[in-house]
Amino acid sequence: MSDSKLNNKMWGGRFVTGPAEIMEEINASIDFDKKLYSQDIDGSLSHAAMLAQTGIILQSDYEKIVHGLQIIRQEIEDGTFAFSRRLEDIHMNIEARLGELIGPAAGRLHTARSRNDQVAVDFRLWAREATQRIMQALKGLIDQFLIRAEQHADTLMPGFTHLQTAQPVTFGHHMMAYVEMFGRDLSRMRDALERMNESPLGAAALAGTSFPIDRFMTAETLGFREPMRNSIDSVSDRDFALEVLSAGAICAMHLSRLAEEIVLWSSVQFHFIRLSDSFSTGSSIMPQKRNPDAAELIRAKAGRLNAALIGLLTVMKGLPLAYSKDMQEDKEYVFDGIANLELSLAAMTGIIGDLEVNQDAMKKAADSGYAIATDLADWLVRELGLAFREAHHITGKAVALAEQKQCSLHDLSLVELQTLCPDINAAIFDVLTVEKSVESRNSFGGTAPLEVLRQVAYWKNYLTTV
Amino acid sequence: MSDSKLNNKMWGGRFVTGPAEIMEEINASIDFDKKLYSQDIDGSLSHAAMLAQTGIILQSDYEKIVHGLQIIRQEIEDGTFAFSRRLEDIHMNIEARLGELIGPAAGRLHTARSRNDQVAVDFRLWAREATQRIMQALKGLIDQFLIRAEQHADTLMPGFTHLQTAQPVTFGHHMMAYVEMFGRDLSRMRDALERMNESPLGAAALAGTSFPIDRFMTAETLGFREPMRNSIDSVSDRDFALEVLSAGAICAMHLSRLAEEIVLWSSVQFHFIRLSDSFSTGSSIMPQKRNPDAAELIRAKAGRLNAALIGLLTVMKGLPLAYSKDMQEDKEYVFDGIANLELSLAAMTGIIGDLEVNQDAMKKAADSGYAIATDLADWLVRELGLAFREAHHITGKAVALAEQKQCSLHDLSLVELQTLCPDINAAIFDVLTVEKSVESRNSFGGTAPLEVLRQVAYWKNYLTTV
Amino acid sequence: MSDSKLNNKMWGGRFVTGPAEIMEEINASIDFDKKLYSQDIDGSLSHAAMLAQTGIILQSDYEKIVHGLQIIRQEIEDGTFAFSRRLEDIHMNIEARLGELIGPAAGRLHTARSRNDQVAVDFRLWAREATQRIMQALKGLIDQFLIRAEQHADTLMPGFTHLQTAQPVTFGHHMMAYVEMFGRDLSRMRDALERMNESPLGAAALAGTSFPIDRFMTAETLGFREPMRNSIDSVSDRDFALEVLSAGAICAMHLSRLAEEIVLWSSVQFHFIRLSDSFSTGSSIMPQKRNPDAAELIRAKAGRLNAALIGLLTVMKGLPLAYSKDMQEDKEYVFDGIANLELSLAAMTGIIGDLEVNQDAMKKAADSGYAIATDLADWLVRELGLAFREAHHITGKAVALAEQKQCSLHDLSLVELQTLCPDINAAIFDVLTVEKSVESRNSFGGTAPLEVLRQVAYWKNYLTTV
Amino acid sequence: MSDSKLNNKMWGGRFVTGPAEIMEEINASIDFDKKLYSQDIDGSLSHAAMLAQTGIILQSDYEKIVHGLQIIRQEIEDGTFAFSRRLEDIHMNIEARLGELIGPAAGRLHTARSRNDQVAVDFRLWAREATQRIMQALKGLIDQFLIRAEQHADTLMPGFTHLQTAQPVTFGHHMMAYVEMFGRDLSRMRDALERMNESPLGAAALAGTSFPIDRFMTAETLGFREPMRNSIDSVSDRDFALEVLSAGAICAMHLSRLAEEIVLWSSVQFHFIRLSDSFSTGSSIMPQKRNPDAAELIRAKAGRLNAALIGLLTVMKGLPLAYSKDMQEDKEYVFDGIANLELSLAAMTGIIGDLEVNQDAMKKAADSGYAIATDLADWLVRELGLAFREAHHITGKAVALAEQKQCSLHDLSLVELQTLCPDINAAIFDVLTVEKSVESRNSFGGTAPLEVLRQVAYWKNYLTTV
Repeated sequence: MSDSKLNNKMWGGRFVTGPAEIMEEINASIDFDKKLYSQDIDGSLSHAAMLAQTGIILQSDYEKIVHGLQIIRQEIEDGTFAFSRRLEDIHMNIEARLGELIGPAAGRLHTARSRNDQVAVDFRLWAREATQRIMQALKGLIDQFLIRAEQHADTLMPGFTHLQTAQPVTFGHHMMAYVEMFGRDLSRMRDALERMNESPLGAAALAGTSFPIDRFMTAETLGFREPMRNSIDSVSDRDFALEVLSAGAICAMHLSRLAEEIVLWSSVQFHFIRLSDSFSTGSSIMPQKRNPDAAELIRAKAGRLNAALIGLLTVMKGLPLAYSKDMQEDKEYVFDGIANLELSLAAMTGIIGDLEVNQDAMKKAADSGYAIATDLADWLVRELGLAFREAHHITGKAVALAEQKQCSLHDLSLVELQTLCPDINAAIFDVLTVEKSVESRNSFGGTAPLEVLRQVAYWKNYLTTV
Repeated sequence: MSDSKLNNKMWGGRFVTGPAEIMEEINASIDFDKKLYSQDIDGSLSHAAMLAQTGIILQSDYEKIVHGLQIIRQEIEDGTFAFSRRLEDIHMNIEARLGELIGPAAGRLHTARSRNDQVAVDFRLWAREATQRIMQALKGLIDQFLIRAEQHADTLMPGFTHLQTAQPVTFGHHMMAYVEMFGRDLSRMRDALERMNESPLGAAALAGTSFPIDRFMTAETLGFREPMRNSIDSVSDRDFALEVLSAGAICAMHLSRLAEEIVLWSSVQFHFIRLSDSFSTGSSIMPQKRNPDAAELIRAKAGRLNAALIGLLTVMKGLPLAYSKDMQEDKEYVFDGIANLELSLAAMTGIIGDLEVNQDAMKKAADSGYAIATDLADWLVRELGLAFREAHHITGKAVALAEQKQCSLHDLSLVELQTLCPDINAAIFDVLTVEKSVESRNSFGGTAPLEVLRQVAYWKNYLTTV
Repeated sequence: MSDSKLNNKMWGGRFVTGPAEIMEEINASIDFDKKLYSQDIDGSLSHAAMLAQTGIILQSDYEKIVHGLQIIRQEIEDGTFAFSRRLEDIHMNIEARLGELIGPAAGRLHTARSRNDQVAVDFRLWAREATQRIMQALKGLIDQFLIRAEQHADTLMPGFTHLQTAQPVTFGHHMMAYVEMFGRDLSRMRDALERMNESPLGAAALAGTSFPIDRFMTAETLGFREPMRNSIDSVSDRDFALEVLSAGAICAMHLSRLAEEIVLWSSVQFHFIRLSDSFSTGSSIMPQKRNPDAAELIRAKAGRLNAALIGLLTVMKGLPLAYSKDMQEDKEYVFDGIANLELSLAAMTGIIGDLEVNQDAMKKAADSGYAIATDLADWLVRELGLAFREAHHITGKAVALAEQKQCSLHDLSLVELQTLCPDINAAIFDVLTVEKSVESRNSFGGTAPLEVLRQVAYWKNYLTTV
Repeated sequence: MSDSKLNNKMWGGRFVTGPAEIMEEINASIDFDKKLYSQDIDGSLSHAAMLAQTGIILQSDYEKIVHGLQIIRQEIEDGTFAFSRRLEDIHMNIEARLGELIGPAAGRLHTARSRNDQVAVDFRLWAREATQRIMQALKGLIDQFLIRAEQHADTLMPGFTHLQTAQPVTFGHHMMAYVEMFGRDLSRMRDALERMNESPLGAAALAGTSFPIDRFMTAETLGFREPMRNSIDSVSDRDFALEVLSAGAICAMHLSRLAEEIVLWSSVQFHFIRLSDSFSTGSSIMPQKRNPDAAELIRAKAGRLNAALIGLLTVMKGLPLAYSKDMQEDKEYVFDGIANLELSLAAMTGIIGDLEVNQDAMKKAADSGYAIATDLADWLVRELGLAFREAHHITGKAVALAEQKQCSLHDLSLVELQTLCPDINAAIFDVLTVEKSVESRNSFGGTAPLEVLRQVAYWKNYLTTV
């Protein structure tokens, strides 16, 4: 059957001039919504089973519908299905093909259901699966951090504020900060999943239906917790898409921060890590050089999620209820946002798994910049009972002295220190190393190696529960 | 004490030139973060109590600190506190004043705590309260919808798709769609609240501390569920702000949709509602005119939330851990976004509570546009067993005939209908009114008045549980 | 030659493990940058000609290069070119194929040129063409408004503020407002075009080159005004993309405003216009219904441009100079933004050209709502010398009286008007019609038909000059 | 006169209940639009002069108006003017006060003018001045780069791609890249200024007026090029605000890139520069530390501009013509965006002017990382006529050898180099230094010191022309 004939039939013979080329271009969604074929078939199978169960259609029609849809699924997966832009979208493409395959029974499938219904249920099913995939990817990434944190629970590195050396921390502790960040992303995705897991199917065009449908049955067979409670809302709502995109934008921001660190750490100036061949590119003339391309691209992907989120928020702004065609624009934002987030998570998982830690360079950096000055000040407060400000004042003088002598704090003599504060005694040297500094910060959540390992244990256990 | 002298003291006498005017302008946050004074004092009281309890400071110092902070709180609330931009932020302003009031004991308060700690805990406390206020405002708005829905469970209006009359619905049903939307907002805010309700206090600069602090105690006294698990994350995290803003942006989008409808409904062309004097403005020369200013402004406020969200996402993009000064920019976005969201919710609550429903105009509009055509088609399928497409074909002809006769479907004679389909019988007239149409759509979540009342009952009960 | 062999060669045999699947997925740009094939070939032809002219390469090599590139262009346009993701991007794909076709001479093409150079020049050439296409599309759309404005210079409609009837205007005047808006868009695109029209070619990797190249020659053959003045900037700059996207976002916003009006005007409630079959979709059961799908989609497309703009601004934020891989993300934003803007402009041009104006409905709406109240007030000021406020007060009473009598202002008797203000005389009736109102507003830029026609003439003439 | 009495008068006694508190909060704009007082008075003076000139009002009334407005301007500037939120906005505040001061003549000022007119003209005047201020600030910043570039035309530093050392450049050359970027910003602002410089005054409510006003006269006295051509567009247009914000967003992005570099360069790891005390903050315990706070805040300000831009684009999306109250939301975005951009430009100008360049560290970094490998390869191509790929291959081996020997390329012996390529001769050593590399890249726009000085001269001259 030709496209033009099909099209004719769809519009009931009324649009004599036919849609212009430009209209097809702007209006047809099949180029991107074909991605929903499987969800569309699942939704139809669920709807048909309910129609048969409630006696709205005959069992024999139901069986034909199931058979036809199975063939269509196979055709699409085999690449033999002929998609047509004239038929606009995935729903109409499948509907038309079902009619060819099983005749009038195909029409029965649309009893007590509208295209708005299908749009709503298909996209929600897709978003649900995507959210689940992202949750898996987040767990995979967190696993890598946990491995790294365990390996490097006592690997020293400078902790930065303002990109200035502040206090020594351990690389494991730093990795665990990301576990918290991506752990919150996981938790947000789980909440989004729970909230979206309601079935819009049965809203019909917008007002519900007079057919005795069973929305609880279709909700259940499609794995939804329950049916949505308001039919107008069912066809008007895109919160589920926006919520996944906003959780995704926060996650992409986290990835961009880590990516920035990887780019910094890979520079000649920092030299903290060495990226594997798999996630960097080289230069034929500078073989020692490794461009952190994957990390740079991950950093940039934050833009994709911001874009998708703000794009869909713009689309939805000021739309009166119920369905407006504007909402067809939802899909490309979500498809693009999700795909880029999945890709970024996968690439980052690879990067973290593969990178080599240059412990010497990290340690050396931790030792420089007088990162342990706070430890000296804290000792003066804790052991000598000095006031906070006085301790800071003395410490400032000690650092200035060390800087002038171009040595580290540890290299100052007791006599020199005592010129700054006569009460200082030899016990001070017990805290004046990077190792001691890190070890001593054993408050809950602190950087002490034992505390880091405790955090790792917490998360390993937690992940077995989600 | 003069500002310049104070400033001198803060920087330890090192910055000989002193910060330039421009630096003060860009760097000082006191103009906006003074809003955090109460949280800052609460955080300090909690920290001081813990320091005393754990023996890190003396009980006598603790009592002085409490006394001093109480005086400062009073001074700020009385408007007698002299804020200084030289002292940069609320933390330093309070710290300096505390020193003036209680002397050296003021310095003890900062034992085992850094400014990063204070920034993190103060802002989180503020965000927590703001989230709770928004949750209250959402409940207040939902209450108004429930009142309206109950009053108008059977008030007829056209249901629109593409702003074209599609099927009749009830105004109560339409109101309940917004209950679902704002109900999801409430649920998102609750999740955000739960997730943010962890205490960063005790992270110190970024690495934890060697003082034997009790983070569980400060978490508890500040009403947090537990301390955050990683000190680097504690000072680097702004997820709580972003999550509230993203939930707020979705909520503002919902408000913009309703505001758009109110603007439409208030137009001469729709004339569905009449706004109260309180939420509209008039014209001295056209006294019948009511400009829906409040609704227009609410519609526009979606821009504020989009702006705040994208602004803060931009700030956080690519920031290396731990604290960078960029993060000081978080507050104005959140303050502005929250204030505008609260204002919008309050104004919308007033609008919904006050508006007069023009039932006649709504009913008339529901009657026009052949909104019940679907009911005719459904009857043909359900009662005569016609195929979906055939039923549509016949209905299309009936509508065309009615349009040609400039009458409603109900006004077509049985004979006329039978020329289109001989099997049609008089029972058809039982479905061909707007009232019958609405009554018949009694599927779960449908527009039938009894179903709407069931939705209202569900929500009334639900709200007692949250 | 197999992909893996090629790949091996590219990296100089160094990356022993080879890029992982995920790296290929995130790193390869060939799937989207193949769109730049023609620009890449043009850039290479220009560079090669310059190399030959300056004696850097032999004429014979130049001829081989030209021949090879011509074959490649043909292969791509014929669809016989085998694109490879292993070769990452369009530049490497063409380079590798050129090597196969012409041997060592292919290598000479890359003398004094880097991939960064190619990326910069190709994308700028593409953006330049896209900007020119959009300028053409804007002119085409403006033409339609001018036709409409001329036809409807005196077609009455209500002018709205707050979507409330304010004063009568003409449909032609309303169309001319859009001419101004899209005229500014045209002007912004022209400025962007002028600013981007500088050649980056010759920047080499980032620092320029020691080969005696002639950047003025390549600039000229590629149609650029001149070479860019700084080689680091040449490879770091994406302003040209951002500027087109920001001009595009403003244009898309204009389109969304008009699209909103079209959706409103198409509603049963307004009924101001009837869309053609070409740009609306119908309903098989409500044949009178026309869903303004194209207008709704155009309205939604504002989201695409906002998304593309904010996405690319996010990518570029905080990137150190010179080239970072993040910048590879520029293309998909621009490709998507431009494509959607072009499509929207084309569809809107069709809509404006095709729509039927329902003059009766517009006139009736202009007559209602006491839109001419201002004319009464102005008459009182102008003819009777009343103060502004007093005139408003009397007019308010007149409107209230007419509303009470459910008649128009024109239907009030002279006696009735004189009870409000004894000085009113019969001349008042000369201004109390919608037609007179519109005719009288003949200030520069006003709605008087003659003024509208003057605006049309201005624009017709102006368009011949750009 | 009390506020409530005034208010009563404004609404013509019709709003019996009076606006609720919340309405005042959402509706009143006086808290932010008082910033427009001077523009409002200028607009009124211009309008009044025209009214007198055209005989629409009496000269005596005109003189009273001028006198009254002068008093009001003085009162506002002296801080004695009592702003009232009941009077909503700056226009009504001034209008009411003028009535108090000069009686009925105040009313004449509003002949042939509406509040929409005032809103449009005041904000455009403000935006015009802001744009001019930003242009001045951009010139001031560019001046600093030119000074730096001239000082450091031959100061060596590594040029980075992917934050990896790529090729040596000069610091002057790097500074000049920013001159190009901010030069384009200047050019965009100038275009925006030109485009916005049209007078909306005379549009009246939206349709023009029947009074014989002279819009060319008011345009001229207010310094506008000409009156806007369409009265509906005059009150509906916010392009001028969006264009300044989008040019501002691109400029803020440029600032964020430079700020990122300053943060990097200030780190211990890079150590390329030392910030002055004026634009950094210190640590009392680590006196050597300078936190680049100002640069971090500038980097973050990119978020403000993105926010303002996307916020206003969101507001304007889908607004039907002509004025809607939504548009009142335009001002806070622009005020905030402009203020933050000005502040960022000022702070960056200070930073660039004050920073100390650590030439040794830059030079050392330029020497490391085999940044001159390209020079070796280019020499092989240029002097020995090797193919591009072969030259790269040999260079790669040379770098690998040097890396293995932990020396620089220059330290390899001729014999060693000849084992890689027998044709290499001693002349090679003439290119194998960073100085030679930079000097040799003298193509137009390249990094050679003489070329950099040529760029400086070009810009110095150019700036005298704008």
